Amino acid sequence: MTVSADCQALLAKYVVPVVPENVLLEDTAIIIDHGAIVDVIDISAVGERYPQATVQALPHHVVMPGMVNAHGHSPMVLMRGLADDLPLMEWLQNHIWPAEQAFASEDFVRAGSELAAVEMLQGGTTCFNDNYFFPNITAEVVEAAGIRALLGLPVMNVPTIWADDEAGYIDQGLAVVEQHGGHDRIGWAWAPHAPYTVSDESFCRLGELTEAGGMRLHLHLLETAGEIEQSLQTHGEHPIDRLVRLGLYNERLIAAHMTQLTAEQIEATARAGVSVLHCPAANMKLASGFCPIDRLDRAGVNIAIGTDGAASNNRLDMFAEMRLASLNAKGSALNPEAAPAARSLSMATIQGARALGLDHLIGSIEVGKAADVIAVDLDEAGSAPIHNVISHLVYAVGRHQVSDVWVSGQRLVQAGEVTTLDRSAIVANAQRWADKMHA
Amino acid sequence: MTVSADCQALLAKYVVPVVPENVLLEDTAIIIDHGAIVDVIDISAVGERYPQATVQALPHHVVMPGMVNAHGHSPMVLMRGLADDLPLMEWLQNHIWPAEQAFASEDFVRAGSELAAVEMLQGGTTCFNDNYFFPNITAEVVEAAGIRALLGLPVMNVPTIWADDEAGYIDQGLAVVEQHGGHDRIGWAWAPHAPYTVSDESFCRLGELTEAGGMRLHLHLLETAGEIEQSLQTHGEHPIDRLVRLGLYNERLIAAHMTQLTAEQIEATARAGVSVLHCPAANMKLASGFCPIDRLDRAGVNIAIGTDGAASNNRLDMFAEMRLASLNAKGSALNPEAAPAARSLSMATIQGARALGLDHLIGSIEVGKAADVIAVDLDEAGSAPIHNVISHLVYAVGRHQVSDVWVSGQRLVQAGEVTTLDRSAIVANAQRWADKMHA
Repeated sequence: MTVSADCQALLAKYVVPVVPENVLLEDTAIIIDHGAIVDVIDISAVGERYPQATVQALPHHVVMPGMVNAHGHSPMVLMRGLADDLPLMEWLQNHIWPAEQAFASEDFVRAGSELAAVEMLQGGTTCFNDNYFFPNITAEVVEAAGIRALLGLPVMNVPTIWADDEAGYIDQGLAVVEQHGGHDRIGWAWAPHAPYTVSDESFCRLGELTEAGGMRLHLHLLETAGEIEQSLQTHGEHPIDRLVRLGLYNERLIAAHMTQLTAEQIEATARAGVSVLHCPAANMKLASGFCPIDRLDRAGVNIAIGTDGAASNNRLDMFAEMRLASLNAKGSALNPEAAPAARSLSMATIQGARALGLDHLIGSIEVGKAADVIAVDLDEAGSAPIHNVISHLVYAVGRHQVSDVWVSGQRLVQAGEVTTLDRSAIVANAQRWADKMHA
Repeated sequence: MTVSADCQALLAKYVVPVVPENVLLEDTAIIIDHGAIVDVIDISAVGERYPQATVQALPHHVVMPGMVNAHGHSPMVLMRGLADDLPLMEWLQNHIWPAEQAFASEDFVRAGSELAAVEMLQGGTTCFNDNYFFPNITAEVVEAAGIRALLGLPVMNVPTIWADDEAGYIDQGLAVVEQHGGHDRIGWAWAPHAPYTVSDESFCRLGELTEAGGMRLHLHLLETAGEIEQSLQTHGEHPIDRLVRLGLYNERLIAAHMTQLTAEQIEATARAGVSVLHCPAANMKLASGFCPIDRLDRAGVNIAIGTDGAASNNRLDMFAEMRLASLNAKGSALNPEAAPAARSLSMATIQGARALGLDHLIGSIEVGKAADVIAVDLDEAGSAPIHNVISHLVYAVGRHQVSDVWVSGQRLVQAGEVTTLDRSAIVANAQRWADKMHA
């Protein structure tokens, strides 16, 4: 194979490629060139086959695909810990929305997106699916940080600084896409907030736009039981029936939460090809209910994992979320075999990529894919001894063990520190925003 | 106040004393002398009042009581990740017990206890309640490590290397206490395994021994629904009724798990003064059920938090466990106000101390108590911005943010590394045990 003079060889003690599932490679090198994975070979063969490669020794590390955070609102990190231990609607209507009404702005979104990018990169997340105001600003941060993202164009019937009404939101979204166009690490999705904040008319419009653009429709769906009651009263039908009627219950739909599902709806979700974006921490913290991961998984539904915003989690930590996905699935199904370690690892990587329509590009360590990979240092007491690396990644490892992160072959985290952003300045700026909110 | 020449002053940005609950102090100094907390004052007053003190600046840290890990089996860290994603009885009977049968020994217990001590200390745990074979060996490790522990004297009807039958276990326990006697950081508890592995006769004997010695009775109780069915068949009564009949359902009983409880049993537990040792990760991972924390808490039951052994968790990480205690309580009760942050922090500290009968000595930052305190560094992206320190400690902080740990005023962790034990050698030794188990 012909590679350039600046190709890299990551010499890993362990590699977990994720595809195929539940496979562990030892003493394996990943060869990266022009941002892509060009080879995966035994370490002993590197010297002969890639003598020009810059080698990076990872002697007690596992290299795995970067994590895909499949549902979040990154700028909300600025509200981390602002209001806890409250019911969803009280939390949203009396704390979060008023704070957003008072403070959300381009500068707020930039400050929050930067902090979120640092937190996610340091924790091994290389791609995130977002939904917030000023996605154009978040896009600028994504470009600078070197991370990858699918950015939502928000739509709802609640007036905010971003738009006055649903039509206004859609116009804003069209303008953002028009202005920014394509970028190899940034995609756009339409992101209607929820069935209870979006009209049939707007849903239809978004259906056309997503179909024409080959885009995802990113929606909060069945987060709580109350949403169903409200839909029955307002629309005379269940939210899923409504989406089916509007022609939106299909493979473009990526639905966050889904804590309320009948057996028939699980089957319908599988047939439709809808992806579920599972947010176990937020669902538990807000006491919304348990997404039936075990049954969805057995029905063949593609499940991805998301942290949700830090105002309801309170961390953008995919290692914590992946572990919780397994624990939550087992505990709620009373089935200890639900969501075994290797499956949760898939949910946090390749299945997240699939939900976002990016599984041709990321989500696994395979030749030809982008080099979005992370190194996890297992040399610590909490990861000893090593009986099973995949078990450790899901149940034992903490985000602080992520030592290095690459996206498209660019090293974004080195020895635990972000290379592209100024962490100290970003943390200080976030604190200034918090102080302003308290004043 | 007269203090010695070697007194210390911890100058903390924040102090969370835990008692009283939900209080935050800023720019506060903790004065430590002869292993005890002798004063808690404003930083500005230290120079004048304690000019001789060795000062330790903690400018972006919160100092809080060391965590009390209220239920575990520390040497089982050597089986971390050995068997996952299995039902409790299959996991226990086909994997854990055979491994113990083959490998448990003095050397195994020493290696595991050392690894557990490193992991717990680095994660901010300063006291743990244990139950395993060779507690005399764990005691030696506790002495050397400088950590604090209540060590269980195991009793069950399963023959092991430690004893052949229940009477043999009791003899072993009596011999251990006789041999070791008192130690200011080590206490002993009787630890019958579970109602389904201990006879009425032995329970009665242990009731007499714990009453005579003012000791705790540390028991697995109602871990699964199956245990109740089995008790009804074998003993003709519910396990709690049996313990009541045997005179053991009282304030000396500390009961791990308790996932199956009726409303009447919750009230009876409160009246009896039984402490519940809540292990949310193990209960979820083994799909045992949800301990009704919200209802127990409202009934006034003292709830402590434990990690259980690393074979079923798979970490001895009280920060992860404390967060999960809140999430688990809210999610299972469908009540977002259950187990608010400050209450889970109490469960992980003062309520753990109370369960172990040590709340006169540890569990809070109060003048006169032992200086078992930890410093948590909030200077990282995942803990920014700071709206609410107590929320951060429970929902956002990871164990890696524990920078320093003191027990009885002795610094056991400094800048994240254990000072009293050789981490590298202990990790390497643990790996040799794992390799032996695989061979």
